[in-house]
Amino acid sequence: MLKDLWAVREAVREKNPLVYNITNTVVTNFTANVLLAAGASPIMSEGAAEAEDLARICSVLVLNIGTLHTRQIGYCLKAGEYANKFQKPVVLDPVGVGATAYRNVTAGQILQDVRVALIRGNYGEIGFIAGTAGQVKGVDSADSGLDLPAVKKMAQEYSTLVAATGATDYLTDGQSVMTNATGHELLQMVTGTGCALTSLTGAFLAVADEPRLGVLAALAFYGAAARKAAENSKGPGSFMPKFLDALYNLSYKEFKKAAEDKVALLT
Amino acid sequence: MLKDLWAVREAVREKNPLVYNITNTVVTNFTANVLLAAGASPIMSEGAAEAEDLARICSVLVLNIGTLHTRQIGYCLKAGEYANKFQKPVVLDPVGVGATAYRNVTAGQILQDVRVALIRGNYGEIGFIAGTAGQVKGVDSADSGLDLPAVKKMAQEYSTLVAATGATDYLTDGQSVMTNATGHELLQMVTGTGCALTSLTGAFLAVADEPRLGVLAALAFYGAAARKAAENSKGPGSFMPKFLDALYNLSYKEFKKAAEDKVALLT
Amino acid sequence: MLKDLWAVREAVREKNPLVYNITNTVVTNFTANVLLAAGASPIMSEGAAEAEDLARICSVLVLNIGTLHTRQIGYCLKAGEYANKFQKPVVLDPVGVGATAYRNVTAGQILQDVRVALIRGNYGEIGFIAGTAGQVKGVDSADSGLDLPAVKKMAQEYSTLVAATGATDYLTDGQSVMTNATGHELLQMVTGTGCALTSLTGAFLAVADEPRLGVLAALAFYGAAARKAAENSKGPGSFMPKFLDALYNLSYKEFKKAAEDKVALLT
Repeated sequence: MLKDLWAVREAVREKNPLVYNITNTVVTNFTANVLLAAGASPIMSEGAAEAEDLARICSVLVLNIGTLHTRQIGYCLKAGEYANKFQKPVVLDPVGVGATAYRNVTAGQILQDVRVALIRGNYGEIGFIAGTAGQVKGVDSADSGLDLPAVKKMAQEYSTLVAATGATDYLTDGQSVMTNATGHELLQMVTGTGCALTSLTGAFLAVADEPRLGVLAALAFYGAAARKAAENSKGPGSFMPKFLDALYNLSYKEFKKAAEDKVALLT
Repeated sequence: MLKDLWAVREAVREKNPLVYNITNTVVTNFTANVLLAAGASPIMSEGAAEAEDLARICSVLVLNIGTLHTRQIGYCLKAGEYANKFQKPVVLDPVGVGATAYRNVTAGQILQDVRVALIRGNYGEIGFIAGTAGQVKGVDSADSGLDLPAVKKMAQEYSTLVAATGATDYLTDGQSVMTNATGHELLQMVTGTGCALTSLTGAFLAVADEPRLGVLAALAFYGAAARKAAENSKGPGSFMPKFLDALYNLSYKEFKKAAEDKVALLT
Repeated sequence: MLKDLWAVREAVREKNPLVYNITNTVVTNFTANVLLAAGASPIMSEGAAEAEDLARICSVLVLNIGTLHTRQIGYCLKAGEYANKFQKPVVLDPVGVGATAYRNVTAGQILQDVRVALIRGNYGEIGFIAGTAGQVKGVDSADSGLDLPAVKKMAQEYSTLVAATGATDYLTDGQSVMTNATGHELLQMVTGTGCALTSLTGAFLAVADEPRLGVLAALAFYGAAARKAAENSKGPGSFMPKFLDALYNLSYKEFKKAAEDKVALLT
């Protein structure tokens, strides 16, 4: 299976998918650099007037509610509707959902009006949407205790893939569950690594023959790059440049070494 | 005293305070990474609708007027009022005050409507609010010539701590003045180091038994980390990752070495 | 000629020009750090209410339409008009023009209402404004195939300098064309390197006796710093800190080595 996953990674570099991001101001720069390093092409937008044009030319739309202005909710919905119309996959990152009613309502509105192909969040965020989570603290925290049956039900309800990422990533289409554990704890010490991963899954999903395989490839690749970067890091500061380098130049041999026995079909 | 300051630094890691930032788009990413590296938990928000929820769950609120949209002023005031209501400390960074009438009015409005625990700015910004400064050039400049009696009077007028940072940092509660000189000049060559320091003082202040000691601990710790990072840096680019690493892994021994004779009670 | 170009670089450090940026949220941090490293003083603003004050105190205004909110278009126009009134040069970066009608209209409005001193874009963006380009993909892409006569005509039409940057940079005042080829391909793998270059050309242009020489100096210096940084880089991640270091400490000897035979008067 690792070869199939790597094939998606190579397709990203060959096809150079255009990832249309409406994302938060904390992570725009890092997200764009992650996409560029991996071979995708980022566009960030805050102008609702260009929703139709960008939805038409993009390969995938990524909606991230991290620092939404009230006025941007309408933009997200509009962009999502155009992406649906033009048959472009939509990925949602419900950042901080569970922490404020505003974020809960916003995520709910998007899920109601827009057909999404993937929801990517940490355990707490996915748990909240699945209806099983407690309080979410901050946006960079990773809670443990994921209720897998509830997450599968959630995937069915919204007819979407769901990826709950943490020490182990869980990916489900509502039927089976795949897991990935290539990641590294230093990822949690750098802001935006979750948001950038969401955008990267969008790029992979957009070029993969099978969406689920695309998302799993992104999860495994991202974590493998983190693992390589962490080897010689002294902390989150030195980790970041090494991580972007690894997204840029990770070899299949390194990927295989990091991902062997770390990717599995759970059920 | 260094042991007392270090105890606050350790409390930040143990208690993991949630720092609620309404800050400028230039520094969101760097600020979040500084907070994470030091062991705090950042949340950035631009949605006025979540002011009450975030003020309720946060440990401290940080208001930064660096790139305020007109519409965000109301958000700052609202968040500040909720923080006051829920007895959460509020820290103000009056970025660029003195440079434009708009910033002067905004800072003045916040200080009028919101009870702040700390104002952190460079000499020029603090001097302006204290009523003694000339023209402020840019937002990253550090002017010399601080009128300490005026700054003490300012602290009394707003019943707040005031930290004027520069080559030497001055911290006053309106009565006594404490100083810190652990910093390094490379901090001035990296944008957002002042803004991130403001957020970090918020994290320290939130967990300290005595607010003034918390702020002093943040100033001394931040500067000591900068000093360590600068040792092997070739410029502002290589300084940044090393600085985040140092915020993450500075030892007490290193802190003591950098802070010895650099922290003092002036009056 | 290299000595004349270097003299402008030194003037930036001596005169420390204040660069007033209305730019996109992706690149604010990187742009500010590039300006600081090179010795200029950045100010970023999103508050239309401070347009007059900032236009009065700045050395140059840089307008970048990368992630414009609809409401910010008015701010750009207002700031541009004040800069014109106070005789401060205005530089325009038409990010992503050609990709959406919204960006086309916005760039067109600015060019109609504001007298600009320089338009800096990649081949695709400049080609679009010159009326010769096809589809622009993303905002970080560099297309080849620049129609120089059309670009010269465009410079005449708007009475401005035009810099179309890519593997080779072309700079024209509508009459002659100068070229620079000091750059490095890794610049394309880091987001915001074009936007930051635009702001840096503003800083150089503001202190140069002859605007065209100022812009050429910025292009040559920026590329030479990139070349130095790329030497020991393993990818875009490690390139970034080294690039900021090089902007900070590039020597004339290094500049000369990188720029020799790379800068030319084409016609």
